[in-house]
Amino acid sequence: MGRGRYAKGDERREEILNAAFEVLSRDGYRKASLAQIGRAIGIESAHVVYYFSSRDALLVEVLRRWDARNAEEVTVGTEPLAWWVESVKRNESNRGIVELYAGLTVEASDPQHPAHAYFVERFARIERDVTAELAELQAVGRLDPRLDPRAATNHIIAVSDGLNLRWLIDPSFDLSGEFRRAIDQVLALTPEPAK
Amino acid sequence: MGRGRYAKGDERREEILNAAFEVLSRDGYRKASLAQIGRAIGIESAHVVYYFSSRDALLVEVLRRWDARNAEEVTVGTEPLAWWVESVKRNESNRGIVELYAGLTVEASDPQHPAHAYFVERFARIERDVTAELAELQAVGRLDPRLDPRAATNHIIAVSDGLNLRWLIDPSFDLSGEFRRAIDQVLALTPEPAK
Repeated sequence: MGRGRYAKGDERREEILNAAFEVLSRDGYRKASLAQIGRAIGIESAHVVYYFSSRDALLVEVLRRWDARNAEEVTVGTEPLAWWVESVKRNESNRGIVELYAGLTVEASDPQHPAHAYFVERFARIERDVTAELAELQAVGRLDPRLDPRAATNHIIAVSDGLNLRWLIDPSFDLSGEFRRAIDQVLALTPEPAK
Repeated sequence: MGRGRYAKGDERREEILNAAFEVLSRDGYRKASLAQIGRAIGIESAHVVYYFSSRDALLVEVLRRWDARNAEEVTVGTEPLAWWVESVKRNESNRGIVELYAGLTVEASDPQHPAHAYFVERFARIERDVTAELAELQAVGRLDPRLDPRAATNHIIAVSDGLNLRWLIDPSFDLSGEFRRAIDQVLALTPEPAK
């Protein structure tokens, strides 16, 4: 049965993804080798490659999975962008994922890198979705009409990525707290800068 | 002459640093090997190690050098933190350095990493210096008295680091322009968020 074989392959992919996720959550992405990931579920690294073609391709799938999980677990908060702060809170208990996002962003800056397209799309998607969300909040009067939704979005994306780097160096840094505070600051528009 | 030998060693160190700087500006820090850096000035990688103990130690020295150069070239601008925007502009024509800062920050998040202390100190120094600068601007009435200089500083540090990541993925992104805009936004305090 084609379908049965298919399902089995899917299961195996799933198993590898879960193992990758656990190994890199525990050891950080730099140390998570294909051999180690395979070992966690008793298979050879060649077998992992059969399903994911390369370590980078597998790491991108781990990030896609994390993105999807975060998108699912959206809690509708009262504060603007509460879902984003929630996902940063989840990151606080998963240092390996934060390391992976940040480290792979730098590696993937080479347009030839297998994860390059993922990051280009991810930035574009977040920019588009959050800009739309802020514009909507503005339309219903919950944000200052003078705010530029796209500029605010790009500002907040940068804060989020930059705070991750800071927190990786200093785990005592209040990642989600500083992020919440920064969002409040960006969304609280003043028309004229104080002189 | 002890002094003569000393001077000669300093010259060699200097030569290696310059070569490292050029090789990684050109090829990115990931591809800049000790062998390549040595080759640029006709020496073996073992000789490079003799002066700098390890690739990571050499890379940290390159960053210290860049930090020092930026500190020297401070132009007193009319806008708050104009010097910082200037140094971001210099980074725009040195992609390898930006890659090095970002990539090494992630690698050095491991407290055992030889560059860890450098990044801990660098964050602390920037936080201290910029907080003092903002407090001074506030004291002379150039910034809103309700602004929290330390919070604003940490926010701006994060924006700066995050914009670097964005720009590494998309070189058409207006790095220094977005940074200037973000600074203006952070320093233009509104006491009550718009509802």
